[in-house]
Amino acid sequence: MSAAPRVIVVMGSDSDLPTMRTCLDVLTKFGLPWEVRVCSAHRTPEEAVKLSREARGRGIQAIIAAAGGAAHLAGVLAAHTTLPVIGVPINSTPLNGVDALYATVQMPPGIPVATVAIGEFGAYNAAVLAAQIIGVADEDMQSRLSEFKRDMEAKVRQKDVQLQEKVKSSAP
Amino acid sequence: MSAAPRVIVVMGSDSDLPTMRTCLDVLTKFGLPWEVRVCSAHRTPEEAVKLSREARGRGIQAIIAAAGGAAHLAGVLAAHTTLPVIGVPINSTPLNGVDALYATVQMPPGIPVATVAIGEFGAYNAAVLAAQIIGVADEDMQSRLSEFKRDMEAKVRQKDVQLQEKVKSSAP
Amino acid sequence: MSAAPRVIVVMGSDSDLPTMRTCLDVLTKFGLPWEVRVCSAHRTPEEAVKLSREARGRGIQAIIAAAGGAAHLAGVLAAHTTLPVIGVPINSTPLNGVDALYATVQMPPGIPVATVAIGEFGAYNAAVLAAQIIGVADEDMQSRLSEFKRDMEAKVRQKDVQLQEKVKSSAP
Amino acid sequence: MSAAPRVIVVMGSDSDLPTMRTCLDVLTKFGLPWEVRVCSAHRTPEEAVKLSREARGRGIQAIIAAAGGAAHLAGVLAAHTTLPVIGVPINSTPLNGVDALYATVQMPPGIPVATVAIGEFGAYNAAVLAAQIIGVADEDMQSRLSEFKRDMEAKVRQKDVQLQEKVKSSAP
Amino acid sequence: MSAAPRVIVVMGSDSDLPTMRTCLDVLTKFGLPWEVRVCSAHRTPEEAVKLSREARGRGIQAIIAAAGGAAHLAGVLAAHTTLPVIGVPINSTPLNGVDALYATVQMPPGIPVATVAIGEFGAYNAAVLAAQIIGVADEDMQSRLSEFKRDMEAKVRQKDVQLQEKVKSSAP
Amino acid sequence: MSAAPRVIVVMGSDSDLPTMRTCLDVLTKFGLPWEVRVCSAHRTPEEAVKLSREARGRGIQAIIAAAGGAAHLAGVLAAHTTLPVIGVPINSTPLNGVDALYATVQMPPGIPVATVAIGEFGAYNAAVLAAQIIGVADEDMQSRLSEFKRDMEAKVRQKDVQLQEKVKSSAP
Amino acid sequence: MSAAPRVIVVMGSDSDLPTMRTCLDVLTKFGLPWEVRVCSAHRTPEEAVKLSREARGRGIQAIIAAAGGAAHLAGVLAAHTTLPVIGVPINSTPLNGVDALYATVQMPPGIPVATVAIGEFGAYNAAVLAAQIIGVADEDMQSRLSEFKRDMEAKVRQKDVQLQEKVKSSAP
Amino acid sequence: MSAAPRVIVVMGSDSDLPTMRTCLDVLTKFGLPWEVRVCSAHRTPEEAVKLSREARGRGIQAIIAAAGGAAHLAGVLAAHTTLPVIGVPINSTPLNGVDALYATVQMPPGIPVATVAIGEFGAYNAAVLAAQIIGVADEDMQSRLSEFKRDMEAKVRQKDVQLQEKVKSSAP
Repeated sequence: MSAAPRVIVVMGSDSDLPTMRTCLDVLTKFGLPWEVRVCSAHRTPEEAVKLSREARGRGIQAIIAAAGGAAHLAGVLAAHTTLPVIGVPINSTPLNGVDALYATVQMPPGIPVATVAIGEFGAYNAAVLAAQIIGVADEDMQSRLSEFKRDMEAKVRQKDVQLQEKVKSSAP
Repeated sequence: MSAAPRVIVVMGSDSDLPTMRTCLDVLTKFGLPWEVRVCSAHRTPEEAVKLSREARGRGIQAIIAAAGGAAHLAGVLAAHTTLPVIGVPINSTPLNGVDALYATVQMPPGIPVATVAIGEFGAYNAAVLAAQIIGVADEDMQSRLSEFKRDMEAKVRQKDVQLQEKVKSSAP
Repeated sequence: MSAAPRVIVVMGSDSDLPTMRTCLDVLTKFGLPWEVRVCSAHRTPEEAVKLSREARGRGIQAIIAAAGGAAHLAGVLAAHTTLPVIGVPINSTPLNGVDALYATVQMPPGIPVATVAIGEFGAYNAAVLAAQIIGVADEDMQSRLSEFKRDMEAKVRQKDVQLQEKVKSSAP
Repeated sequence: MSAAPRVIVVMGSDSDLPTMRTCLDVLTKFGLPWEVRVCSAHRTPEEAVKLSREARGRGIQAIIAAAGGAAHLAGVLAAHTTLPVIGVPINSTPLNGVDALYATVQMPPGIPVATVAIGEFGAYNAAVLAAQIIGVADEDMQSRLSEFKRDMEAKVRQKDVQLQEKVKSSAP
Repeated sequence: MSAAPRVIVVMGSDSDLPTMRTCLDVLTKFGLPWEVRVCSAHRTPEEAVKLSREARGRGIQAIIAAAGGAAHLAGVLAAHTTLPVIGVPINSTPLNGVDALYATVQMPPGIPVATVAIGEFGAYNAAVLAAQIIGVADEDMQSRLSEFKRDMEAKVRQKDVQLQEKVKSSAP
Repeated sequence: MSAAPRVIVVMGSDSDLPTMRTCLDVLTKFGLPWEVRVCSAHRTPEEAVKLSREARGRGIQAIIAAAGGAAHLAGVLAAHTTLPVIGVPINSTPLNGVDALYATVQMPPGIPVATVAIGEFGAYNAAVLAAQIIGVADEDMQSRLSEFKRDMEAKVRQKDVQLQEKVKSSAP
Repeated sequence: MSAAPRVIVVMGSDSDLPTMRTCLDVLTKFGLPWEVRVCSAHRTPEEAVKLSREARGRGIQAIIAAAGGAAHLAGVLAAHTTLPVIGVPINSTPLNGVDALYATVQMPPGIPVATVAIGEFGAYNAAVLAAQIIGVADEDMQSRLSEFKRDMEAKVRQKDVQLQEKVKSSAP
Repeated sequence: MSAAPRVIVVMGSDSDLPTMRTCLDVLTKFGLPWEVRVCSAHRTPEEAVKLSREARGRGIQAIIAAAGGAAHLAGVLAAHTTLPVIGVPINSTPLNGVDALYATVQMPPGIPVATVAIGEFGAYNAAVLAAQIIGVADEDMQSRLSEFKRDMEAKVRQKDVQLQEKVKSSAP
């Protein structure tokens, strides 16, 4: 995306991309230019610090960090910025993402990480949460969020009608 | 607090107050006027809906919701607003807050809850996260957050010095 | 089904249908007309409230609610009715349904959800429990339940015989 | 209570009484005569079978079973009756009641147990659920349930007012 | 097997057979005649009671019970006999067998179930444990157990040699 | 106890004695002479091996092993004997005994440990299980076990009567 | 301690000192001079990086890091050094240290943390492990470790004798 | 490998080889000659003891032990040596490796096991940790570790560039 990014999406590994693709799509849908990065709290720690430190100055308004296992990425980014950091726990070890969830959400006093659901649900919601955060002081984003909510409601209502139809027709 | 509130802190039960007191204190420290409410997703569901629906119109910029057990409060509030909702899982059942954590963080696509740590750490961090969210478009809040970070760092450094002194003097 | 429904089966998502199909089949087996709905505690909250509020007046005798993740659906429905609400935790996230189980069963005092097993076992049993609840004051349903119990016993006895035969014949 | 009991409350051990006392109180509040029993699925299995088998014939409309650890009581009672059986998992081992929850809720197809929350919340809600089940065909009980819901709502509203007053007055 | 059975292997469902097949094979290897049964604590409770009560009189020396979910089978059998009952938790629900493990092992004082590992490891070991129990007073069985231990050791030693050979030959 | 011991009770640490005292008492009640030992799988491994190896030759009929944390004691003893080894998981770490339970019960094929409940329930039941194992070929022990079962049943019946009396008298 | 430190013990908070005191004592017992620090991965991240980077140059041979909750400290230190880093998960949240354990042990490929037990057991063992690591190339430390092992064995043997005496004398 | 081994890699079963292959590869990469063994704490306990006892005398500098289920192998090896023992919990039962993790890490005071992540991540990191331990007193290994860290960083930076390119090119 060519516009100056307003949200950075950081992944601890490029293997997180399939899970996080939906996050990028939802940001785009909300008209939020994004930058995507692979950056490891442990393997490129200086890059992580630099990314986090410079974010606000570059006009970034929210950071989304996705990581699995001992998921330190969101916390490490949060240590170096006053921007809100959204953490997406990734299910990439035998522990089903519980390790990533605990390592992301149980932050000590002073350094919050806004944690969302494990995996794809969280990837989706991280983008919505970023839009909500930005929407606090952005009337245009508020309109988009209201419209998004109406669409979502309409889709569920439609599925309700479809399901009733489908189940009826498949009944003996 | 007499100024128009910018943050609402909602608790599922008044027994959550001891845990959430620190949240109110930190909001005050950041100069954020707050309103505190007891409101149950299940026992006063209409009140919850009303509170959430009217929040943005009243100038509220973030909602903090604390609940234990099958903690639906944050999710129910999030269903009725486009404001960011921060969820604090409360440890109020034999399950040590894991029930409240899962019921708060595992939200379906479209309705995120920005979840923080279980109990007192979360109560503290919910206030900091609210300040960060508001700080995205509020230069003054950014300054306070930067100062807060410096203070925090200074305190840890001070404890570092004190611990080294203390352990040395208690050594045989 | 054309008769006036006595049980409503609500799903948080149409993707829950494969799990819940057995529930509908068992209700039909017990001669209980049902209505099936897709309705989300978070995406169509007003629809959920309306559905729950009007249920008793329409002659509904039990509500079955199936949801995964931070499964608030059963609790939200229970908040708006005095009918018994049966909750089926769905296994739809990496946490194997433990999140849905905790979010369904750990309800606060005053708003019970009659929770059954995670997934297909629960889908089946939700229908049986609905029949038992209705059978409290319905002699005809009691007869069907007694017959159901006898059938179930007969089937296990038959499998017992078959297994003994099968294992014996496959022995060296 | 001298009236013919409509609900039986069975405990696996008399040490469950402190947790279950609230259950008896709530049943009384709903005007439901109860019988209380100590009966073990393992130590007095025949008594358990007899109790369950004879319940319906004696006019019992719901059975509440409370047990901890490998909590088989509710399931064993459910095996011998077509009445709805409500299970209360008791927190009586180092596992915080998770063992009792799983042993109560994860019943196989055909034999549901209507499971409520672990411990005191569950003890309270078992009584409310019994009233709801009985209320399906009992207009009088429905009125009591509606009144109960209104009272509950009023109490939360009152606590909301009190908390706002209390926190304000304790503010600096 | 035509000899009078010395061990009964009871399964809660015939779907447990693939897991339990190894148990039968190991019993056969130890020269222990067995009887295999499908019997449900909840669906054929009387059959379970009868089976357990009559076991000792028929010359049975150990009962092996395999069940998943809210696995009450071993406990219910143990309630009606003074024979040792060995419980095999089966992994047949989304909870990976943790539910079956807790429901089998966390028995109340007075009614032990000798619990072994979840699934196939447990199926194998239930047979070995039965042999050990019978071997307490059976010199012949002791010899077989000693031989079994030597064989097991020899096999591991052989695999040790093979692995070293295999890894070496596949090294670059 | 002066008679030749028939059961050895081994603890990983002398801090396990308060939990295991009941085990010794129950063995005594069954007339089973016991020997009690502190022996660590890790700190006195040779002693553990020696104890286990010599047990059968000394007339021991069952070994009971209690340990917490990474509870290897029962497994290590089982590796060196063909006697049945009963494992009691002790709750001695922050993990509430789940670590000890998993480390005791999840044994690999060929080396079973007959695992009982975590903590005091398990301590009690280890003794009963030892009696049952010995009772397989000991008519006298069978009689004691039958009597024990009758006593247990009588006590529960008595508590049933007492509870009904107590609750009635405390009713308003 | 005045000698140049060979081990650094870092705590995420000074509240971890009571748990970690034993670690310092055991290091002293092994004759290993230590330095103790309070340093937070999130609140003084630069201090943490500096500490870790400079450690090897200062002659440090092992780093011990203790932290609770989303315990990132050990991992963050490990990211900046090629020294072995030993992690002690601290039990300082409602999750009993499971969060700290997962956040410490589940490190991604390339950045290991040598994790020991939660809490006091781990504090003790971190010191022993440091001694073992240093002992790989330090004959003197090897002798101390061998002596330590003998002492440990002797103490368990002594407790074995004492327990047998104690239990005998308290027997009826 | 023909050079005298400096690290022994022991597996509880030859079925652990696919997981542990990466461990051998990484050791080779660090120029560390290794010996691979299959050895069971329970099935070949004497072999385990012998292996551990003789390791130091043979010039071994670290032992890596991989096991699943009730994973006693690392602990049993640690009991017989003063060398550092690294434990890799293997995911080989329905419990996803949590059983192996707890059985490996929760060691009692005096006998540490340096535990790494469950499964493949742990297999990889066990080799790196061995290199770090050996590197404490081996300048050459230090250089390799520094180079390894630089390579790792370079690879993540490269993936960062590739991902940005890839996502951009796949954007609509």
